[in-house]
Amino acid sequence: MISIADVREAAARIAGLVHRTPVMTCAALDDLTGVRLFFKCENFQKVGAFKMRGAVNAVFSLKEAEAARGVATHSSGNHAQALALAARLRGIPAFVVMPENAPEVKRRAVAGYGAGIIPCAPTLAAREETLAGVTARTGAVFIHPYNDERVMAGQGTAALELLEEVPDLDVVMAPVGGGGLLSGTATVCAGSAPRPRVIAAEPAGADDAARSLAAGRIIPSVDPATIADGLLTSLGELTFAVIRERVAAIWTVGEEDIVRAMRLVWERMKIIIEPSAAVPLAALLARPGALADLRVGVILSGGNVDLDRLPWLLDRRRPETTKG
Amino acid sequence: MISIADVREAAARIAGLVHRTPVMTCAALDDLTGVRLFFKCENFQKVGAFKMRGAVNAVFSLKEAEAARGVATHSSGNHAQALALAARLRGIPAFVVMPENAPEVKRRAVAGYGAGIIPCAPTLAAREETLAGVTARTGAVFIHPYNDERVMAGQGTAALELLEEVPDLDVVMAPVGGGGLLSGTATVCAGSAPRPRVIAAEPAGADDAARSLAAGRIIPSVDPATIADGLLTSLGELTFAVIRERVAAIWTVGEEDIVRAMRLVWERMKIIIEPSAAVPLAALLARPGALADLRVGVILSGGNVDLDRLPWLLDRRRPETTKG
Repeated sequence: MISIADVREAAARIAGLVHRTPVMTCAALDDLTGVRLFFKCENFQKVGAFKMRGAVNAVFSLKEAEAARGVATHSSGNHAQALALAARLRGIPAFVVMPENAPEVKRRAVAGYGAGIIPCAPTLAAREETLAGVTARTGAVFIHPYNDERVMAGQGTAALELLEEVPDLDVVMAPVGGGGLLSGTATVCAGSAPRPRVIAAEPAGADDAARSLAAGRIIPSVDPATIADGLLTSLGELTFAVIRERVAAIWTVGEEDIVRAMRLVWERMKIIIEPSAAVPLAALLARPGALADLRVGVILSGGNVDLDRLPWLLDRRRPETTKG
Repeated sequence: MISIADVREAAARIAGLVHRTPVMTCAALDDLTGVRLFFKCENFQKVGAFKMRGAVNAVFSLKEAEAARGVATHSSGNHAQALALAARLRGIPAFVVMPENAPEVKRRAVAGYGAGIIPCAPTLAAREETLAGVTARTGAVFIHPYNDERVMAGQGTAALELLEEVPDLDVVMAPVGGGGLLSGTATVCAGSAPRPRVIAAEPAGADDAARSLAAGRIIPSVDPATIADGLLTSLGELTFAVIRERVAAIWTVGEEDIVRAMRLVWERMKIIIEPSAAVPLAALLARPGALADLRVGVILSGGNVDLDRLPWLLDRRRPETTKG
């Protein structure tokens, strides 16, 4: 299991290759929540999300000979862009398996960083088969989006920087999808003194991590329905092992609360965050008094939003799961 | 005429009452413009705009006896909110004359800071008459939104901080409406060594400042048409005197370029700026090569935007003046 020492190594490895993002505060949100909030702004990270940290750590962990053959992954999200850019920074090829129906804008973003895109049918089986073909053909190293200790340690560097800047936090909150960010964050907190409690937040419409933690085993995400499209995936074995040991609680929250929290951050902090990044604040706002007067760090995980389709302007049909 | 010493005094007076805002950079925008850009983020200022600086400096410049009777202004924009909050910080009354047809959201914002709102008919004459009545009745001190040396010196503190952080700028850009921000900025630059050139930017649809500078006298703004609603007003005698002496050029730019630059900042920097704040970057993007390889500071003047009405989602009729 990864330790804070792995995260420190990752921090040294990625220094200068990723941004050291600012920690922001907001008096209006402090007043509204009754909590002293410290936001770690990974929306300002390269490629607009924390994913850059894990991808760079993984790519720069490879030995010269391995690296030369390139890296590969399947993703249509922030990990694909991050891996593409990380590979470009190291000067090696990247191969990204992406479903044929992925939005053109995402394909362009990944191609823009110089990665090769290999289309596949939009099924899990097709994705894995296509990826296996790519790695067999090229010898590229598969970098999983979260279930990889190099990636997990890399993601933990955001919390490491946060605690360097604000050492006396009572709680650190992060969203949970596959658990890469959460496991890295929890590892840093568990290894720190004082030791902040880690509270994760998850959409009620994609609450597999909360159910997994309660059940003591991974319960896969089935038909998740949430606007927080970074949080749709199931936990991995490696991330779950860390999470069950080091995370105090997973709070779920409904869709309307997520959209409201996202808009609140835009309005009050004047920064752009994506729906997934708003989930911790939404969960906190839905539990008035739960963390009263505490000092709470929040990882704002990313800021990649389609500005033509803002959630409060869409005529959304609300999934049934949003009442959680 | 104000000098950099006045701005330094203002900086000392308002320290701790306004935010020291961050200076941000963006590699993607540097690549796009061929310029090294340093953005002074007044969108993160209290009330979401630089106006807080001038209002606080003016309010805290008043002698005890004057201050006790309160302050008054006419505005439905950022100055009204800023004056209301500045007055609250000093614990004195504020009176804001506002046209009856001002948007409810603006009225609520000013009232939320504890100011009294005095409605008037939506004409210049009614506004001035109503304001005169208020100051006569209450003894409150009128604080003009820009044509006031205390306000101008206060607005200059943004550039002062910018140059403290990045001393070797070749150019500083700011938008121009009434000229409060621009005159303060130009005063700081004129008093600094090395001395950056000051280039102002203005919507082509509200180009009274550019025409005034060319004519050597104030040409009033008549029927301005621009989405940059912070830049509709005419220059004042005090601001014009500074501008004609200390500003190198005023660049105009069309509406579509303003909207495109605003969106670019949202997408690439993940921060929210209002249309007025995008005008300098828009003017720069419209003049490729004009400042090639220079180090350019840009004052991002504010971030108050109606998130239900984003300009790129509106079916706008383009004013004829946008081709400038």
